[in-house]
Amino acid sequence: MKLYEYTQAPNPRRVRVFLAEKGIKVPYEQVDIGTGKNRAPEFLKINPMGGLPVLELDDGTHLAESVAICRYFEALHPEPRLMGIDGKDAATVEMWNRRMEFEILSMTAGAFRNTTAFFKGKIPQSAEYGAICKDAAIKRLEWLDTVLADRPYIAGERFTIADITAMIGIDFGKLSDIRILPEQKNLARWHQSVSSRPSAKA
Amino acid sequence: MKLYEYTQAPNPRRVRVFLAEKGIKVPYEQVDIGTGKNRAPEFLKINPMGGLPVLELDDGTHLAESVAICRYFEALHPEPRLMGIDGKDAATVEMWNRRMEFEILSMTAGAFRNTTAFFKGKIPQSAEYGAICKDAAIKRLEWLDTVLADRPYIAGERFTIADITAMIGIDFGKLSDIRILPEQKNLARWHQSVSSRPSAKA
Repeated sequence: MKLYEYTQAPNPRRVRVFLAEKGIKVPYEQVDIGTGKNRAPEFLKINPMGGLPVLELDDGTHLAESVAICRYFEALHPEPRLMGIDGKDAATVEMWNRRMEFEILSMTAGAFRNTTAFFKGKIPQSAEYGAICKDAAIKRLEWLDTVLADRPYIAGERFTIADITAMIGIDFGKLSDIRILPEQKNLARWHQSVSSRPSAKA
Repeated sequence: MKLYEYTQAPNPRRVRVFLAEKGIKVPYEQVDIGTGKNRAPEFLKINPMGGLPVLELDDGTHLAESVAICRYFEALHPEPRLMGIDGKDAATVEMWNRRMEFEILSMTAGAFRNTTAFFKGKIPQSAEYGAICKDAAIKRLEWLDTVLADRPYIAGERFTIADITAMIGIDFGKLSDIRILPEQKNLARWHQSVSSRPSAKA
Protein backbone atom coordinates (compact mmCIF):
# COMPACT_ATOMS: atom_id res chain seq x y z
CA MET A 1 0.00 0.00 0.00
CA LYS A 2 1.17 3.55 -0.71
CA LEU A 3 -0.33 7.00 -0.91
CA TYR A 4 0.43 9.36 -3.78
CA GLU A 5 0.20 12.83 -2.34
CA TYR A 6 1.60 16.38 -2.33
CA THR A 7 2.54 17.95 0.96
CA GLN A 8 1.44 21.49 0.10
CA ALA A 9 -2.10 20.77 -1.15
CA PRO A 10 -5.18 20.75 1.10
CA ASN A 11 -6.77 17.42 0.14
CA PRO A 12 -3.63 15.34 0.80
CA ARG A 13 -3.37 17.08 4.19
CA ARG A 14 -6.96 15.99 4.90
CA VAL A 15 -6.01 12.33 4.52
CA ARG A 16 -2.70 12.71 6.40
CA VAL A 17 -4.52 14.20 9.41
CA PHE A 18 -7.17 11.45 9.24
CA LEU A 19 -4.48 8.75 9.24
CA ALA A 20 -2.60 10.44 12.10
CA GLU A 21 -5.79 10.49 14.21
CA LYS A 22 -6.05 6.72 13.70
CA GLY A 23 -2.35 6.09 14.21
CA ILE A 24 -2.01 4.55 10.75
CA LYS A 25 1.28 4.85 8.87
CA VAL A 26 1.36 4.48 5.07
CA PRO A 27 4.34 5.16 2.78
CA TYR A 28 3.93 8.42 0.86
CA GLU A 29 5.08 9.21 -2.67
CA GLN A 30 5.14 12.88 -3.64
CA VAL A 31 3.57 13.95 -6.98
CA ASP A 32 4.50 17.56 -7.71
CA ILE A 33 1.42 19.60 -8.65
CA GLY A 34 3.67 22.65 -9.09
CA THR A 35 5.43 21.12 -12.09
CA GLY A 36 2.23 19.44 -13.36
CA LYS A 37 3.31 15.86 -12.59
CA ASN A 38 -0.31 15.10 -11.63
CA ARG A 39 -1.41 15.97 -15.20
CA ALA A 40 1.28 13.82 -16.86
CA PRO A 41 0.09 10.76 -18.82
CA GLU A 42 1.66 8.27 -16.34
CA PHE A 43 -0.25 9.77 -13.44
CA LEU A 44 -3.52 10.07 -15.38
CA LYS A 45 -3.39 6.26 -15.71
CA ILE A 46 -3.54 6.16 -11.90
CA ASN A 47 -6.19 8.87 -11.56
CA PRO A 48 -7.75 10.22 -14.77
CA MET A 49 -9.00 13.26 -12.81
CA GLY A 50 -5.42 14.26 -11.97
CA GLY A 51 -6.35 14.77 -8.32
CA LEU A 52 -4.37 13.91 -5.21
CA PRO A 53 -4.21 11.96 -2.98
CA VAL A 54 -4.57 8.48 -4.50
CA LEU A 55 -4.22 5.29 -2.46
CA GLU A 56 -2.59 2.33 -4.20
CA LEU A 57 -3.60 -0.99 -2.65
CA ASP A 58 -1.42 -4.09 -2.72
CA ASP A 59 -3.65 -5.67 -5.38
CA GLY A 60 -2.94 -2.68 -7.66
CA THR A 61 -6.32 -0.98 -7.15
CA HIS A 62 -6.19 2.80 -7.12
CA LEU A 63 -8.59 4.62 -4.83
CA ALA A 64 -8.95 8.36 -5.43
CA GLU A 65 -11.05 11.05 -3.70
CA SER A 66 -9.97 11.98 -0.17
CA VAL A 67 -13.21 11.03 1.57
CA ALA A 68 -13.37 7.67 -0.24
CA ILE A 69 -9.82 6.95 0.97
CA CYS A 70 -10.81 7.96 4.50
CA ARG A 71 -13.85 5.67 4.32
CA TYR A 72 -11.61 2.77 3.29
CA PHE A 73 -9.39 3.31 6.35
CA GLU A 74 -12.42 3.82 8.62
CA ALA A 75 -13.60 0.30 7.65
CA LEU A 76 -10.10 -1.17 8.05
CA HIS A 77 -9.32 0.54 11.39
CA PRO A 78 -12.64 1.61 12.89
CA GLU A 79 -11.24 3.23 16.05
CA PRO A 80 -11.31 6.06 16.80
CA ARG A 81 -14.54 6.56 14.85
CA LEU A 82 -14.20 9.65 12.69
CA MET A 83 -17.15 9.03 10.33
CA GLY A 84 -19.95 8.23 12.78
CA ILE A 85 -21.07 5.36 15.00
CA ASP A 86 -24.54 4.23 13.87
CA GLY A 87 -26.66 5.04 10.80
CA LYS A 88 -28.05 8.35 12.03
CA ASP A 89 -24.71 9.48 13.40
CA ALA A 90 -22.87 8.54 10.20
CA ALA A 91 -25.43 10.52 8.18
CA THR A 92 -25.03 13.52 10.52
CA VAL A 93 -21.24 13.43 10.23
CA GLU A 94 -21.55 13.14 6.46
CA MET A 95 -23.89 16.16 6.36
CA TRP A 96 -21.42 18.26 8.33
CA ASN A 97 -18.43 17.01 6.39
CA ARG A 98 -20.16 17.90 3.13
CA ARG A 99 -21.10 21.34 4.42
CA MET A 100 -17.46 21.90 5.37
CA GLU A 101 -16.36 20.67 1.94
CA PHE A 102 -18.81 22.63 -0.18
CA GLU A 103 -19.22 25.78 1.90
CA ILE A 104 -15.69 26.20 3.28
CA LEU A 105 -13.01 24.10 1.56
CA SER A 106 -14.42 24.42 -1.98
CA MET A 107 -14.75 28.16 -1.46
CA THR A 108 -11.25 28.78 -0.04
CA ALA A 109 -9.83 26.46 -2.72
CA GLY A 110 -11.96 28.16 -5.41
CA ALA A 111 -10.70 31.58 -4.31
CA PHE A 112 -7.10 30.37 -4.66
CA ARG A 113 -7.40 28.23 -7.80
CA ASN A 114 -9.18 30.92 -9.81
CA THR A 115 -6.79 33.75 -9.03
CA THR A 116 -3.32 32.31 -8.38
CA ALA A 117 -0.44 32.56 -10.84
CA PHE A 118 0.45 29.04 -9.64
CA PHE A 119 -2.32 27.59 -11.87
CA LYS A 120 -2.14 30.16 -14.70
CA GLY A 121 -2.30 28.34 -18.03
CA LYS A 122 -2.66 24.98 -16.24
CA ILE A 123 -6.40 25.08 -15.49
CA PRO A 124 -9.20 27.40 -16.70
CA GLN A 125 -9.48 30.32 -14.27
CA SER A 126 -12.13 32.97 -13.61
CA ALA A 127 -11.10 35.84 -11.34
CA GLU A 128 -14.78 36.79 -11.16
CA TYR A 129 -15.70 33.38 -9.75
CA GLY A 130 -12.68 33.46 -7.43
CA ALA A 131 -14.07 36.66 -5.88
CA ILE A 132 -17.50 35.00 -5.46
CA CYS A 133 -15.80 32.09 -3.67
CA LYS A 134 -13.85 34.39 -1.37
CA ASP A 135 -16.96 36.34 -0.42
CA ALA A 136 -18.88 33.08 0.20
CA ALA A 137 -16.08 31.69 2.39
CA ILE A 138 -16.01 34.86 4.53
CA LYS A 139 -19.81 34.68 5.02
CA ARG A 140 -19.64 30.97 5.86
CA LEU A 141 -17.01 31.54 8.54
CA GLU A 142 -19.43 34.01 10.21
CA TRP A 143 -22.11 31.31 10.13
CA LEU A 144 -19.73 28.60 11.39
CA ASP A 145 -18.91 30.78 14.39
CA THR A 146 -22.62 30.68 15.37
CA VAL A 147 -22.76 26.89 14.85
CA LEU A 148 -19.87 26.42 17.28
CA ALA A 149 -21.56 28.46 20.03
CA ASP A 150 -23.19 25.37 21.54
CA ARG A 151 -20.83 22.51 20.73
CA PRO A 152 -17.13 21.67 20.96
CA TYR A 153 -16.84 20.17 17.46
CA ILE A 154 -18.45 20.75 14.07
CA ALA A 155 -20.70 17.67 14.12
CA GLY A 156 -21.39 17.76 17.88
CA GLU A 157 -19.65 16.32 20.92
CA ARG A 158 -16.92 14.34 19.18
CA PHE A 159 -14.01 15.16 16.86
CA THR A 160 -14.82 13.84 13.35
CA ILE A 161 -13.75 14.10 9.73
CA ALA A 162 -15.88 17.27 9.51
CA ASP A 163 -13.40 19.00 11.85
CA ILE A 164 -10.51 17.87 9.67
CA THR A 165 -12.16 19.18 6.50
CA ALA A 166 -13.03 22.50 8.17
CA MET A 167 -9.53 22.95 9.58
CA ILE A 168 -7.74 22.30 6.31
CA GLY A 169 -10.29 24.43 4.43
CA ILE A 170 -9.84 27.37 6.79
CA ASP A 171 -6.04 27.04 6.93
CA PHE A 172 -5.90 26.98 3.12
CA GLY A 173 -7.92 30.22 3.09
CA LYS A 174 -4.94 32.13 4.48
CA LEU A 175 -3.39 32.04 0.99
CA SER A 176 -6.37 34.12 -0.20
CA ASP A 177 -6.47 36.34 2.91
CA ILE A 178 -9.57 34.59 4.28
CA ARG A 179 -9.13 34.47 8.05
CA ILE A 180 -10.98 33.88 11.32
CA LEU A 181 -11.83 37.33 12.70
CA PRO A 182 -11.08 38.32 16.31
CA GLU A 183 -14.81 38.62 17.12
CA GLN A 184 -15.44 35.03 15.92
CA LYS A 185 -14.63 33.65 19.36
CA ASN A 186 -16.33 30.26 19.02
CA LEU A 187 -14.59 29.60 15.73
CA ALA A 188 -11.24 30.77 17.14
CA ARG A 189 -11.62 28.53 20.21
CA TRP A 190 -12.47 25.53 18.03
CA HIS A 191 -9.60 26.26 15.63
CA GLN A 192 -7.14 26.53 18.52
CA SER A 193 -8.44 23.20 19.85
CA VAL A 194 -8.18 21.22 16.59
CA SER A 195 -4.87 22.84 15.61
CA SER A 196 -3.26 21.79 18.89
CA ARG A 197 -3.93 18.09 18.26
CA PRO A 198 -0.75 16.27 17.20
CA SER A 199 -2.51 15.18 13.96
CA ALA A 200 -2.68 18.80 12.74
CA LYS A 201 1.06 18.66 11.99
CA ALA A 202 0.77 15.49 9.87
CA MET B 1 -40.58 11.37 8.79
CA LYS B 2 -40.91 13.69 5.79
CA LEU B 3 -38.73 14.96 2.99
CA TYR B 4 -38.63 18.64 2.04
CA GLU B 5 -37.89 18.71 -1.66
CA TYR B 6 -38.53 20.41 -4.99
CA THR B 7 -39.56 18.33 -7.96
CA GLN B 8 -37.65 20.30 -10.60
CA ALA B 9 -34.20 20.41 -8.95
CA PRO B 10 -31.51 17.77 -9.53
CA ASN B 11 -30.52 16.96 -5.93
CA PRO B 12 -34.06 16.15 -4.77
CA ARG B 13 -34.40 13.88 -7.80
CA ARG B 14 -31.23 12.11 -6.71
CA VAL B 15 -32.83 11.14 -3.39
CA ARG B 16 -36.21 10.28 -4.97
CA VAL B 17 -34.52 7.84 -7.37
CA PHE B 18 -32.47 6.34 -4.52
CA LEU B 19 -35.64 5.79 -2.44
CA ALA B 20 -37.49 4.30 -5.43
CA GLU B 21 -34.66 1.80 -5.98
CA LYS B 22 -35.08 0.67 -2.37
CA GLY B 23 -38.87 0.70 -2.50
CA ILE B 24 -39.08 3.25 0.35
CA LYS B 25 -41.97 5.69 0.46
CA VAL B 26 -41.64 8.95 2.44
CA PRO B 27 -44.11 11.87 2.45
CA TYR B 28 -42.80 14.81 0.43
CA GLU B 29 -43.31 18.50 1.09
CA GLN B 30 -42.51 20.88 -1.76
CA VAL B 31 -40.34 23.96 -1.07
CA ASP B 32 -40.44 26.28 -4.09
CA ILE B 33 -36.91 27.32 -5.10
CA GLY B 34 -38.43 29.41 -7.92
CA THR B 35 -40.06 31.82 -5.48
CA GLY B 36 -37.13 31.64 -3.02
CA LYS B 37 -39.00 29.71 -0.30
CA ASN B 38 -35.75 27.82 0.42
CA ARG B 39 -34.06 31.13 1.34
CA ALA B 40 -36.89 32.29 3.62
CA PRO B 41 -36.10 32.55 7.37
CA GLU B 42 -38.44 29.65 8.29
CA PHE B 43 -36.65 27.27 5.95
CA LEU B 44 -33.18 28.47 6.94
CA LYS B 45 -34.01 27.25 10.45
CA ILE B 46 -34.39 23.78 8.92
CA ASN B 47 -31.30 24.04 6.69
CA PRO B 48 -29.10 27.14 7.09
CA MET B 49 -27.54 26.37 3.69
CA GLY B 50 -30.93 26.75 1.97
CA GLY B 51 -30.38 23.52 0.04
CA LEU B 52 -32.86 20.79 -0.79
CA PRO B 53 -33.72 18.05 -0.05
CA VAL B 54 -33.86 17.91 3.77
CA LEU B 55 -35.10 14.88 5.69
CA GLU B 56 -37.06 15.55 8.87
CA LEU B 57 -36.92 12.62 11.29
CA ASP B 58 -39.68 11.85 13.80
CA ASP B 59 -37.48 13.14 16.65
CA GLY B 60 -37.27 16.53 14.90
CA THR B 61 -33.73 16.08 13.59
CA HIS B 62 -33.10 17.62 10.17
CA LEU B 63 -30.69 15.84 7.87
CA ALA B 64 -29.51 17.82 4.85
CA GLU B 65 -27.15 16.94 1.96
CA SER B 66 -28.45 14.38 -0.53
CA VAL B 67 -25.72 11.80 -0.02
CA ALA B 68 -26.02 12.03 3.78
CA ILE B 69 -29.77 11.37 3.44
CA CYS B 70 -29.05 8.42 1.13
CA ARG B 71 -26.53 7.05 3.64
CA TYR B 72 -29.17 7.23 6.38
CA PHE B 73 -31.59 5.17 4.29
CA GLU B 74 -28.84 2.74 3.24
CA ALA B 75 -28.28 1.94 6.94
CA LEU B 76 -32.04 1.69 7.63
CA HIS B 77 -32.87 -0.43 4.54
CA PRO B 78 -29.61 -2.00 3.37
CA GLU B 79 -31.05 -3.88 0.38
CA PRO B 80 -30.51 -3.41 -2.47
CA ARG B 81 -27.04 -2.12 -1.64
CA LEU B 82 -26.47 1.13 -3.51
CA MET B 83 -23.42 2.39 -1.56
CA GLY B 84 -21.18 -0.67 -1.54
CA ILE B 85 -20.93 -4.04 0.21
CA ASP B 86 -17.65 -4.19 2.15
CA GLY B 87 -15.05 -1.54 3.02
CA LYS B 88 -13.18 -1.60 -0.27
CA ASP B 89 -16.36 -1.69 -2.32
CA ALA B 90 -17.94 1.17 -0.32
CA ALA B 91 -14.80 3.25 -0.90
CA THR B 92 -14.88 2.45 -4.62
CA VAL B 93 -18.55 3.43 -4.91
CA GLU B 94 -17.82 6.63 -2.98
CA MET B 95 -14.94 7.45 -5.31
CA TRP B 96 -17.16 7.06 -8.37
CA ASN B 97 -20.07 8.88 -6.80
CA ARG B 98 -17.79 11.79 -5.95
CA ARG B 99 -16.36 11.84 -9.45
CA MET B 100 -19.89 11.97 -10.84
CA GLU B 101 -20.78 14.75 -8.40
CA PHE B 102 -17.73 16.94 -8.91
CA GLU B 103 -16.97 16.28 -12.57
CA ILE B 104 -20.49 15.92 -14.00
CA LEU B 105 -23.30 17.15 -11.72
CA SER B 106 -21.41 20.15 -10.28
CA MET B 107 -20.40 21.14 -13.81
CA THR B 108 -23.86 20.84 -15.42
CA ALA B 109 -25.37 22.58 -12.36
CA GLY B 110 -22.62 25.23 -12.44
CA ALA B 111 -23.29 25.89 -16.14
CA PHE B 112 -26.98 26.43 -15.36
CA ARG B 113 -26.72 28.31 -12.05
CA ASN B 114 -24.19 30.82 -13.34
CA THR B 115 -26.04 31.77 -16.51
CA THR B 116 -29.78 31.29 -15.95
CA ALA B 117 -32.22 34.17 -15.46
CA PHE B 118 -33.93 31.84 -12.95
CA PHE B 119 -31.25 32.69 -10.35
CA LYS B 120 -30.55 36.29 -11.43
CA GLY B 121 -30.35 38.50 -8.34
CA LYS B 122 -30.87 35.46 -6.07
CA ILE B 123 -27.34 34.08 -6.03
CA PRO B 124 -24.00 35.53 -7.21
CA GLN B 125 -23.45 34.50 -10.83
CA SER B 126 -20.44 34.45 -13.14
CA ALA B 127 -21.15 33.80 -16.82
CA GLU B 128 -17.40 33.29 -17.29
CA TYR B 129 -17.37 30.47 -14.74
CA GLY B 130 -20.61 29.04 -16.19
CA ALA B 131 -18.80 28.68 -19.54
CA ILE B 132 -15.86 26.94 -17.83
CA CYS B 133 -18.32 24.50 -16.22
CA LYS B 134 -20.05 23.77 -19.52
CA ASP B 135 -16.76 23.10 -21.27
CA ALA B 136 -15.63 20.84 -18.41
CA ALA B 137 -18.91 18.88 -18.47
CA ILE B 138 -18.61 18.28 -22.22
CA LYS B 139 -15.02 17.00 -21.80
CA ARG B 140 -16.03 14.78 -18.87
CA LEU B 141 -18.80 13.13 -20.88
CA GLU B 142 -16.18 12.18 -23.49
CA TRP B 143 -14.11 10.60 -20.71
CA LEU B 144 -17.11 8.85 -19.14
CA ASP B 145 -17.85 7.22 -22.50
CA THR B 146 -14.41 5.58 -22.36
CA VAL B 147 -14.95 4.47 -18.72
CA LEU B 148 -18.16 2.69 -19.73
CA ALA B 149 -16.46 0.73 -22.53
CA ASP B 150 -15.68 -2.20 -20.21
CA ARG B 151 -18.46 -2.18 -17.60
CA PRO B 152 -22.25 -1.98 -17.44
CA TYR B 153 -22.39 0.60 -14.62
CA ILE B 154 -20.27 3.54 -13.47
CA ALA B 155 -18.73 1.79 -10.45
CA GLY B 156 -18.51 -1.67 -12.05
CA GLU B 157 -20.87 -4.62 -12.31
CA ARG B 158 -23.71 -3.31 -10.14
CA PHE B 159 -26.06 -0.33 -10.25
CA THR B 160 -25.08 2.11 -7.45
CA ILE B 161 -25.63 5.66 -6.24
CA ALA B 162 -22.89 6.71 -8.70
CA ASP B 163 -25.24 5.82 -11.58
CA ILE B 164 -28.00 7.90 -9.99
CA THR B 165 -25.73 10.92 -9.58
CA ALA B 166 -24.43 10.60 -13.14
CA MET B 167 -27.94 10.23 -14.61
CA ILE B 168 -29.38 13.25 -12.84
CA GLY B 169 -26.24 15.28 -13.60
CA ILE B 170 -26.37 14.45 -17.30
CA ASP B 171 -30.14 14.96 -17.54
CA PHE B 172 -29.82 18.36 -15.86
CA GLY B 173 -27.20 19.30 -18.47
CA LYS B 174 -29.90 19.43 -21.17
CA LEU B 175 -30.97 22.83 -19.78
CA SER B 176 -27.52 24.12 -20.74
CA ASP B 177 -27.36 22.22 -24.04
CA ILE B 178 -24.87 19.67 -22.69
CA ARG B 179 -25.79 16.34 -24.27
CA ILE B 180 -24.54 12.83 -24.93
CA LEU B 181 -23.21 12.82 -28.51
CA PRO B 182 -24.20 10.15 -31.05
CA GLU B 183 -20.63 8.80 -31.19
CA GLN B 184 -20.57 8.28 -27.39
CA LYS B 185 -22.07 4.82 -27.75
CA ASN B 186 -21.06 3.41 -24.37
CA LEU B 187 -22.45 6.41 -22.56
CA ALA B 188 -25.66 6.30 -24.64
CA ARG B 189 -26.12 2.58 -23.93
CA TRP B 190 -25.63 3.15 -20.20
CA HIS B 191 -27.97 6.16 -20.18
CA GLN B 192 -30.66 4.18 -21.98
CA SER B 193 -30.25 1.38 -19.43
CA VAL B 194 -30.48 3.54 -16.28
CA SER B 195 -33.24 5.74 -17.72
CA SER B 196 -35.43 2.72 -18.41
CA ARG B 197 -35.44 1.63 -14.75
CA PRO B 198 -38.77 2.49 -13.08
CA SER B 199 -36.87 4.58 -10.47
CA ALA B 200 -35.81 7.09 -13.14
CA LYS B 201 -39.38 8.46 -13.18
CA ALA B 202 -39.48 9.04 -9.41
